[in-house]
Amino acid sequence: MLGRVLNTHQQWLCRQLADRGYVVSRQVAVDDCGPAITGAVEESLGRAELILVTGGLGPTSDDRTRDLIAGLLARSLREDPSVLAHIETFFSGRGRPMPASTCVQALVPEGATVLPNAHGTAPGLVLDTPSPTGSTRPGLLVMLPGPPRELRPMFLEQAAPLILKRFPREVPFVCRTLKTTGVGESVVEERIARPLQHLVAAGLEIGYCARSGEVDVRFVANGLQAQPMVTEAEEITRSLLRDSIYGIDDEDLATVVVRLLTERKQSVALAESCTGGFIAHRLTNVPGASAVFAAGLLTYSNEAKQTFLGVRAETLAANGAVSEAVAREMVKGVGKKTGADYALSVTGIAGPGGGSVEKPVGTVFLALASGRKTIVLKQFNPFDRETFKQVTSQQALNLLRRKILDLD
Amino acid sequence: MLGRVLNTHQQWLCRQLADRGYVVSRQVAVDDCGPAITGAVEESLGRAELILVTGGLGPTSDDRTRDLIAGLLARSLREDPSVLAHIETFFSGRGRPMPASTCVQALVPEGATVLPNAHGTAPGLVLDTPSPTGSTRPGLLVMLPGPPRELRPMFLEQAAPLILKRFPREVPFVCRTLKTTGVGESVVEERIARPLQHLVAAGLEIGYCARSGEVDVRFVANGLQAQPMVTEAEEITRSLLRDSIYGIDDEDLATVVVRLLTERKQSVALAESCTGGFIAHRLTNVPGASAVFAAGLLTYSNEAKQTFLGVRAETLAANGAVSEAVAREMVKGVGKKTGADYALSVTGIAGPGGGSVEKPVGTVFLALASGRKTIVLKQFNPFDRETFKQVTSQQALNLLRRKILDLD
Repeated sequence: MLGRVLNTHQQWLCRQLADRGYVVSRQVAVDDCGPAITGAVEESLGRAELILVTGGLGPTSDDRTRDLIAGLLARSLREDPSVLAHIETFFSGRGRPMPASTCVQALVPEGATVLPNAHGTAPGLVLDTPSPTGSTRPGLLVMLPGPPRELRPMFLEQAAPLILKRFPREVPFVCRTLKTTGVGESVVEERIARPLQHLVAAGLEIGYCARSGEVDVRFVANGLQAQPMVTEAEEITRSLLRDSIYGIDDEDLATVVVRLLTERKQSVALAESCTGGFIAHRLTNVPGASAVFAAGLLTYSNEAKQTFLGVRAETLAANGAVSEAVAREMVKGVGKKTGADYALSVTGIAGPGGGSVEKPVGTVFLALASGRKTIVLKQFNPFDRETFKQVTSQQALNLLRRKILDLD
Repeated sequence: MLGRVLNTHQQWLCRQLADRGYVVSRQVAVDDCGPAITGAVEESLGRAELILVTGGLGPTSDDRTRDLIAGLLARSLREDPSVLAHIETFFSGRGRPMPASTCVQALVPEGATVLPNAHGTAPGLVLDTPSPTGSTRPGLLVMLPGPPRELRPMFLEQAAPLILKRFPREVPFVCRTLKTTGVGESVVEERIARPLQHLVAAGLEIGYCARSGEVDVRFVANGLQAQPMVTEAEEITRSLLRDSIYGIDDEDLATVVVRLLTERKQSVALAESCTGGFIAHRLTNVPGASAVFAAGLLTYSNEAKQTFLGVRAETLAANGAVSEAVAREMVKGVGKKTGADYALSVTGIAGPGGGSVEKPVGTVFLALASGRKTIVLKQFNPFDRETFKQVTSQQALNLLRRKILDLD
């Protein structure tokens, strides 16, 4: 509540629940004092059948959620030996002494189901709750640890199956997201809205979500006709947007590129300037990237472009570092030195400084070489530094994807 | 509520309010159906003197906030000629026809103060409200447009001055965050909780926030003694945690490192393997990084380590790529080729594959060279891939920070 932390749980959990057909009616954040937590949970108990509570399960004195909720539901706390053993193993495996305060995380409210924490010490806890107003079935309260890398796998692997079992979907629910890149949100809508009109009239919901460098198209349908409706919508959309669609659901463009390269036993090498390692970072976030990622040369300075990539001093002097000629020499250099099947280079002006009238901030040249052929793309991405990197990396990876698939 | 949009308003507004000494007691998100909006606002009216409402002021059919709040407070709506004129100017200035639906944004509840929108069409609206429970002074409800680039300047330039005038701070308010790395959350608390006990008894609030590879310690105090209390807490904490504290408030470790290098006119070069460009990405997110970042060599494969860094085949064969010997040769190679003041290398096993009994997933060697001296650090970071990168990059940047400041 002090604005020090960005709440990413709301989006992530809402997304997970929506994709499974659950409607989230309210999200509440309160500070970590007792009455605020108790008040918010108590109101939720009257309002909803399913309540997710995040954070406040840690070892420090401001972690009070476990205690307060146990109190609110009149459950006593007991130390759970298996949780305690897990915490001990967690610390000894890291060769670190276990602070005494950590034991509080082994306290479990009477009747709670424990969700073991594979990535931390505080377990998740699931409790049955009284029926809320207007419902006849009992509710479920799920407490999840705050750190995203603990919360997310615990939700996916343990909480979601429990929720699905307890609150089964009575009518079929189908959700499909098509991920596009290289076309704007209004263009996407303009192309598909009318051809999908008859499905919308029959109950299909269409959502558009524009992000940096990509647009999601999401179809949702309920009822017995849900699957055929979504399938028809997907077919129509694919026939209209064709190869602008790079993936489905949660796929990331980097994951798609690594998969395409892996299937073909091919490799890529990068020469990045203005993106500063972000393209490599995205590729190497994908497990298995090491088999297809030959090397990345982050040549920010002119000297580094000369030393590592063999860019000529005359080329730099005549054209400037941000130019088609330098992009070409960079890609040639990294291709030659690594022998990778594809070589990709990027040189541009991320800003905020460094722009000129001729080459304003946001100017970027991308080059892609495979065999003897080189394509160069000039783009203009006049955004803040992080958005610039995101959009430029998307253009670079899409250039590579289209080349691998021979789309152009 | 479908998880398609990240809520950045909460953090931004909470931060703005907290920095001005206002305590935000609750944040609520609801879907844009009528009863949900009315219900959430009605509850807030009973709870708080100041209510900020964001979004739902636009021209489309799902923008219902203005109407619903006017209804709730029994205010009639009238078309405001100055707002209408602004909207007309907005469209004509962009050479676009004004859609008829846009006029709805010129409707203003009776008695409302209009906040002109310099970056869009929907104005902000401010209304007096009845006193909430437990208060004798009337409340204030501020409606702000949803798009961040409209909301933020409107809040800073118009809403914040109104709020400060209406609710002047009677007592001083002080907030300070100390950012630490290299020590765990429970260790941090164990070291400082007791020595700060007397300040907590006197009203100081302490908060801990653990992230991957760092822990924030935050002090908040109110009243005439706020500044001396927070200053004393900071002094005590600094004397106990010493150089584990790398920065204050919003500083990021990469920003600190770039600043230290810039001040000293020094440079750094990187040889990254398992972090795959993430350290370079963090450094190059900082504006001005180009002056201190010589180059980054992302040598994922053994071949790349040999070609670009001169790592010897025998060293690789005898020790494996993840070894102290290879980390040393990598750092030597990148230092020599770039002539940078500091050279940093990282080689490890990010997982999920590639581990062995002797070198399990998470094993990582970091080497730092400056002049003729090289330090090597072995770490064990058995996390998912992204957390591995985050934690390892934090260790690498901290190693560099400590070397620049000559702390070891």
